[in-house]
Amino acid sequence: MSKLSAAPLRIAPLKIGIAGLGTVGVGVAEILQNNAAQSAKRAGRELQLVAVSSRNQAKDRGIKLQCVEWIEDAMLLASHPQIDAVVELIGGAEGVAYELCKTALQNGKHVITANKALIAHHGVELAEIAEAKCVQLQFEAAVAGGIPIIKLIKEGLAANDYQKMIGILNGTCNYILSTMEQTGRGFDDVLSEAQALGYAEADPAFDIDGIDAAHKLCILSAIAFGTHPAISQIYCEGVREITAEDIAAARSLGYTIRLIATTAKHTHGVELRVHPALLALGTPVSEVDGVYNAVHLFADCVGDVFIEGKGAGRYPTASAVVADIIDVARGNAVAPFLTPTATLTKANIIPMIQHVCAYYLRLNVSDNSGVLAAITKCFSDAGVSIARLIQQERSARKAADITLTTHPTMEGNMNQAIKAMQQLDNILLSPARMIRIET
Amino acid sequence: MSKLSAAPLRIAPLKIGIAGLGTVGVGVAEILQNNAAQSAKRAGRELQLVAVSSRNQAKDRGIKLQCVEWIEDAMLLASHPQIDAVVELIGGAEGVAYELCKTALQNGKHVITANKALIAHHGVELAEIAEAKCVQLQFEAAVAGGIPIIKLIKEGLAANDYQKMIGILNGTCNYILSTMEQTGRGFDDVLSEAQALGYAEADPAFDIDGIDAAHKLCILSAIAFGTHPAISQIYCEGVREITAEDIAAARSLGYTIRLIATTAKHTHGVELRVHPALLALGTPVSEVDGVYNAVHLFADCVGDVFIEGKGAGRYPTASAVVADIIDVARGNAVAPFLTPTATLTKANIIPMIQHVCAYYLRLNVSDNSGVLAAITKCFSDAGVSIARLIQQERSARKAADITLTTHPTMEGNMNQAIKAMQQLDNILLSPARMIRIET
Repeated sequence: MSKLSAAPLRIAPLKIGIAGLGTVGVGVAEILQNNAAQSAKRAGRELQLVAVSSRNQAKDRGIKLQCVEWIEDAMLLASHPQIDAVVELIGGAEGVAYELCKTALQNGKHVITANKALIAHHGVELAEIAEAKCVQLQFEAAVAGGIPIIKLIKEGLAANDYQKMIGILNGTCNYILSTMEQTGRGFDDVLSEAQALGYAEADPAFDIDGIDAAHKLCILSAIAFGTHPAISQIYCEGVREITAEDIAAARSLGYTIRLIATTAKHTHGVELRVHPALLALGTPVSEVDGVYNAVHLFADCVGDVFIEGKGAGRYPTASAVVADIIDVARGNAVAPFLTPTATLTKANIIPMIQHVCAYYLRLNVSDNSGVLAAITKCFSDAGVSIARLIQQERSARKAADITLTTHPTMEGNMNQAIKAMQQLDNILLSPARMIRIET
Repeated sequence: MSKLSAAPLRIAPLKIGIAGLGTVGVGVAEILQNNAAQSAKRAGRELQLVAVSSRNQAKDRGIKLQCVEWIEDAMLLASHPQIDAVVELIGGAEGVAYELCKTALQNGKHVITANKALIAHHGVELAEIAEAKCVQLQFEAAVAGGIPIIKLIKEGLAANDYQKMIGILNGTCNYILSTMEQTGRGFDDVLSEAQALGYAEADPAFDIDGIDAAHKLCILSAIAFGTHPAISQIYCEGVREITAEDIAAARSLGYTIRLIATTAKHTHGVELRVHPALLALGTPVSEVDGVYNAVHLFADCVGDVFIEGKGAGRYPTASAVVADIIDVARGNAVAPFLTPTATLTKANIIPMIQHVCAYYLRLNVSDNSGVLAAITKCFSDAGVSIARLIQQERSARKAADITLTTHPTMEGNMNQAIKAMQQLDNILLSPARMIRIET
């Protein structure tokens, strides 16, 4: 236990090397410089930025890095004799990011990273090395940007047996869906705007297909439930297909649509899924707007805790990285995945066909007699019970829109009903649109 | 740094003594028993309840305490040779709670407490001893029950320079006000119900006069802003005077009424105040209902973070206590007030007459000609600008209700306007009712 005393600080500085000087890297360097005195008081020792690695030293990043060594090859940080802790902000599950973190840990250096793909794919392997070498591997910034959700699970609520989490873990999708809702505009239109505003990447697939949220969720699930991250088994469905009509129809039924990331522990396995869902208006997660992230966590002692904050951006993400650096400086030592890697079990992920929930369905059907009878028969044959059904004529052509919700049913039964409908002759004019309702 | 490895755990158990076996004490003992294996994996060592102190051993608390030593005099825990950490759940700022914590720390034992009054009044003195003895003093459970807000400020967001917090820190008041709003019932009626439900004490003064929230706020403010807890200087106003009419009028203006606890740092000092306030509907804090607590925190890097959870109750509070115990077992060492006590400064609390906000005012006036002119002159003379004004006749007698809101103004000016109105002859039929509007 370190003795904390007033200045002068008697413990040697923590010497830091940053690999990658992009948006977050510059933010980390700025905070280390601007909040230096405060951070030293809080950490009990100075946080000293010793070296940075970036390919382009000449680029103007709007920050002066004095007395900091510039290193071209990031890998050199892993063996740098002056460095105690490597901050990896290169990104990517493989390549330099992976090699750097692995080698740094092997060399007895602490590693702090914001790299969700790396942790989702190689986190346990890296944690094993960290544990063997008695150094820290911290990755708070990998999940939900400024929200310290990993620390919440590993420390603040550590007395609890976790039951369930439902989160908004991708700010890009949340911005798109909440803007579509507020403005009535279409998906492509709002995506273009999000790209122009810097809320979405030029290639948005990683965000809008749910992959980013899946990486984050699989890390949270592993920590909360003591399992290996199950990135290959996660159910992942993005938001490309969500239309303004879906959002308006959901709203009229008392719901909003969000990309949710949720995991829950049951006696027969773990739920692990990322997909758009209808959320009842008034529930905490339904009210998360714009680029905010949030997690609603359920556990045996505390009941439920809801936390919301900015999920991305230079300073919120850098806030999480620097908090991890302060933790390392303090000598706080918690296993990277909360319990030692040797105790992590293989997650038994429950297949989606066994998932039970209510469903929203939008059908565009031909407006002939007998259509409704044929469709409702598909549901009853599959054992699916309809809760609400609204049929509206489409103007100017012989078609109708049917919007319906079901009572909770197993997804396998729902799939069967939809498949049967699609096999009917001349009834569905376009594929059925199914969105899960989350309760 | 402790090496975390798979079972068998090679580090000696943390030996715990609990003083006080009331609601929370029993909860702590239960969690230590029921979640023992999980907690040991997470803490890296066993958490072993060695002794408990309570006056009445015979009382049935619904829990079996096997192999646990019963001690009548709590003070004996402070010198008990088998105990590493004392959990103080006796309560009260003075007396046994204070003596026990002080002596235990002096004897080199860690102390975990849920005692907000003790920490608000004697926290720094106790922290000084803890720092000198290199032991931990932890008090997460003292503020906002199950919400780990102290850890959030001390660790999860430690990179930030804190600017402001606004919280709901008293579940009793929040239950009363949100129930009044939902049902239209009066204060006394709902208070009686809260007492019957166990949400309010038989003597509710500590809660409904804002004292409980003031203790909690003053601890959060001290940690966030690096100051001594300023319990003697906090502005504290309770909720006894809030009527169903106020709540209805606020609602019609787009506000809800809550007891807020808020602190903010300015160049000229620190705001520190607990009082009822009108909150715009749709803001996160305005939507905290029932016995929930919440904190909305603003800081330079992260922007804002909002966290909500149960503020009281056996298991939520015990969750916080046990998380502190796990922290102590892990050897996590952060100064009790985030920075060492020697670096804490005296808070310069800004007096309320300098506070600037918009105000809600409800006046019951005689319904004569010239009344409105006389009243509005009081405002203009004091330099207070009216934003909205609604005058309604009272049925069956010569009286009228005036509800108004002002533009932001200094509280000194507002006090001057109200004083002038009260000095008018035959105009105010009852004292003016003023509630601040929080933005």
